[in-house]
Amino acid sequence: MTGISTARSLQLNRLRRIEGQVRGIARMVEQDQNCIDVLTQVSAASRALQSVALALVDEHINTCLLDAAHDADSQRQVRLKEASAAIARLVRS
Amino acid sequence: MTGISTARSLQLNRLRRIEGQVRGIARMVEQDQNCIDVLTQVSAASRALQSVALALVDEHINTCLLDAAHDADSQRQVRLKEASAAIARLVRS
Amino acid sequence: MTGISTARSLQLNRLRRIEGQVRGIARMVEQDQNCIDVLTQVSAASRALQSVALALVDEHINTCLLDAAHDADSQRQVRLKEASAAIARLVRS
Amino acid sequence: MTGISTARSLQLNRLRRIEGQVRGIARMVEQDQNCIDVLTQVSAASRALQSVALALVDEHINTCLLDAAHDADSQRQVRLKEASAAIARLVRS
Repeated sequence: MTGISTARSLQLNRLRRIEGQVRGIARMVEQDQNCIDVLTQVSAASRALQSVALALVDEHINTCLLDAAHDADSQRQVRLKEASAAIARLVRS
Repeated sequence: MTGISTARSLQLNRLRRIEGQVRGIARMVEQDQNCIDVLTQVSAASRALQSVALALVDEHINTCLLDAAHDADSQRQVRLKEASAAIARLVRS
Repeated sequence: MTGISTARSLQLNRLRRIEGQVRGIARMVEQDQNCIDVLTQVSAASRALQSVALALVDEHINTCLLDAAHDADSQRQVRLKEASAAIARLVRS
Repeated sequence: MTGISTARSLQLNRLRRIEGQVRGIARMVEQDQNCIDVLTQVSAASRALQSVALALVDEHINTCLLDAAHDADSQRQVRLKEASAAIARLVRS
């Protein structure tokens, strides 16, 4: 038993791959490779990070926000404000 | 002599920091930390990658695109198309 | 009595302003104005649309998602999937 | 002869359509329609604005930036800085 859910290990795989992508981009910059090629890799890493973020939003909506419905009023306000602010930061990033 | 320009080493520093951020996010996911906190770190890493991308665009405009003005017509078309496509991928990522 | 809430009329004001911005951009294009200036106006209109979207997400989280907690299981699944998909489209747009 | 190029009239068509989309979104808000549906329309309008922006970037790269190669040094610096800054605002919007 690993104790890590499938969704969790999918996210970890994505993050390991992104870490490798970023390391690869650093290597390209060191080797002074064509900047269009570097830019293409940066866009790919950004999209991959976005997928991690959207999976987190999905998970959050399906767990925390539903739990919030059963919270006391003041606690619920805090949770919903936090979720809304985090999504706003993501959309603006 | 390192042979690496200041702009280059600034980019490398940024990329090392992003690599560390992504590793930190993986650790947060493993430790099952609050998903809003994870999401906030993902947004920060995305913004940092965006800064790397914008520095590449800036460098590209200041070097390659100016060089393109002196290329033969057909070669210039290729270069400009590539630049435009790379910026489009970035904006859409 | 207008029957329209403050949040609602704030959104309508934003949308009227964006409509005016888009009309202004069309005029700039017709008058063949400097493309950097046009691009700056397009970015401003995009950011304004983003604010409308984020206010909608905030409203949705505070009303529909909380209601979903009291829905029957199957109906709740549908609602949460819809919300998640709409946020994903927004983040990717 | 209208004096308006095909690219120009394509942009104007896009902008008229976006203006209509934004007006449609305002109507949906007034009629208190489902916020997921409104959000979907806002994302579509954002993507359409993005296409207008990318066509402007493309046009700019193919005309102004090439012209810049023949400018005096100081004037060229100004132009390239402006282009870079406008693309950065777009990527961040």
